[in-house]
Amino acid sequence: MTSQNEQVRLRLDISYDGTDFSGWAAQPNRRTVAGCLSTALSVLFRGEVPLVVAGRTDAGVHAVGQVAHIDVPTAVLRTLAPRLRGDVAGCNASADDLSGGRTGLLRRLAGLLPPDVRVSQVGVAPEGFDARFSALRRHYRYLVGTAQWGVEPLRRRDVFARRRPLDVDAMSRAATALIGLHDFAAFCKPREGATTIRELQGLQIRQDVDLILIDVRADAFCHSMVRSLVGSLIAVGEGHVPVHHPAQLLARATRASGIHIAPALGLTLVAVDYPADAEMADRARATRATRAMPGREPGQGP
Amino acid sequence: MTSQNEQVRLRLDISYDGTDFSGWAAQPNRRTVAGCLSTALSVLFRGEVPLVVAGRTDAGVHAVGQVAHIDVPTAVLRTLAPRLRGDVAGCNASADDLSGGRTGLLRRLAGLLPPDVRVSQVGVAPEGFDARFSALRRHYRYLVGTAQWGVEPLRRRDVFARRRPLDVDAMSRAATALIGLHDFAAFCKPREGATTIRELQGLQIRQDVDLILIDVRADAFCHSMVRSLVGSLIAVGEGHVPVHHPAQLLARATRASGIHIAPALGLTLVAVDYPADAEMADRARATRATRAMPGREPGQGP
Repeated sequence: MTSQNEQVRLRLDISYDGTDFSGWAAQPNRRTVAGCLSTALSVLFRGEVPLVVAGRTDAGVHAVGQVAHIDVPTAVLRTLAPRLRGDVAGCNASADDLSGGRTGLLRRLAGLLPPDVRVSQVGVAPEGFDARFSALRRHYRYLVGTAQWGVEPLRRRDVFARRRPLDVDAMSRAATALIGLHDFAAFCKPREGATTIRELQGLQIRQDVDLILIDVRADAFCHSMVRSLVGSLIAVGEGHVPVHHPAQLLARATRASGIHIAPALGLTLVAVDYPADAEMADRARATRATRAMPGREPGQGP
Repeated sequence: MTSQNEQVRLRLDISYDGTDFSGWAAQPNRRTVAGCLSTALSVLFRGEVPLVVAGRTDAGVHAVGQVAHIDVPTAVLRTLAPRLRGDVAGCNASADDLSGGRTGLLRRLAGLLPPDVRVSQVGVAPEGFDARFSALRRHYRYLVGTAQWGVEPLRRRDVFARRRPLDVDAMSRAATALIGLHDFAAFCKPREGATTIRELQGLQIRQDVDLILIDVRADAFCHSMVRSLVGSLIAVGEGHVPVHHPAQLLARATRASGIHIAPALGLTLVAVDYPADAEMADRARATRATRAMPGREPGQGP
């Protein structure tokens, strides 16, 4: 017998154009991604649906690979997705069962959401899945346009028009010195009681004609970290500071004054990595144990 | 001695996001691409600067490779581009001489133009160059999103969210029957005295996951021709009409009623081809001779 209160956890894959949002997190009287999603989900699931997200993003930051989870009543889900087979709570339902066809959840959500936020996948989450705590790492991309005439008008919402050449080789050398497990306090907006120790797993810079692509990945990011890293690298690329300057900042124990913060519009959350299904619960437990100190905000957006 | 009235012809390469423009052609009380460009150019060159364009585009249509020419007073150009060397009118000045440095024309134009229209290249045109009549062919691309959840929010301005699967193979077969020199009257909005005979040189359809790319090239297009061709192919792809239907429309001598016209937002003018410099004048003469009948509008946008 299925209890009236039985719930099932769904994983949502989400894309948005951050231009017209005051960031991810719901705020009173502000248009936010979580606010718009919550409204649509509450209509669909006939009640409030709390969202847990992998990477909370700032105002103006975009996403093509954001991940969130929600817990919804199994009974309601069955009425919405009649083709759902088997034991939902036991995870035998695939994403196809939920999203397929004209009456699928994806199509319904598309109709309920504004065009600047989309749910591109929805499926029953693996056992133990937590969008925030199960995540292994987050991938961000920052785009800088160097042409003096600006950026292609159709890309002006996600490419920062710096409009001057950057020394990509100098930027790459500066980036190499930042890789690894460090206290990134100099690059983070402080939060009470929150650690700023992160493992920066990758920071690659490459150029495609007039476009510079900066790919950053870490287990998690503290607040404003990606934009501060990118801003420091741009300062190196312009020759305003020497190549070793970002590494010198890293040595400081507190937020560096005069740090360069790159504009939000060039930044996109491109993907969140998770372990194999069988390891979801273990990963979530491990993350909580090592990071869930009072006031700590793991998985924080940049 | 340089005459006060001596002029030099410049070629401009132009990109725009057509979303917020009432098309290319200047119209009273409407925001148009030509209107915005003319305002910026008249400030820069201290007087009215008539624009001649390769492909006039409709409201909502974008461009990444639009081409235009202007004739400006040589004396004014010399004050704007002091590094310009040699005999300007005799075309010894390269694009680099005009665009380079902080005081270059590109940088000045970038400051005078809104971010949804950019001039990406400017240079002294080859002898005999005419942006409209020297053109060999125009390339357009149409983008259709087939995912039921919609299109990536950052691409929603240039991808038509059809949100259903299309039969790309059927569309390709229908397209093949349209290639060649034909009277495209069925696909064109009529203009008094204007021929609708065009050489459709290419019409390719390919799929990249949830995105369908339709590439069209012709010597020139009559009014609404690209959007009518694409609309007819989408109708085939959806199974609403048989594969041979577009070819049947082609056989009609007048504009077909009930023709499908694809929305403007999916369409981008991607490039205009010109012959080698030495052949510019001959090509312009040939185009004028064969096409400049009364009321005829060669190089018309789609």
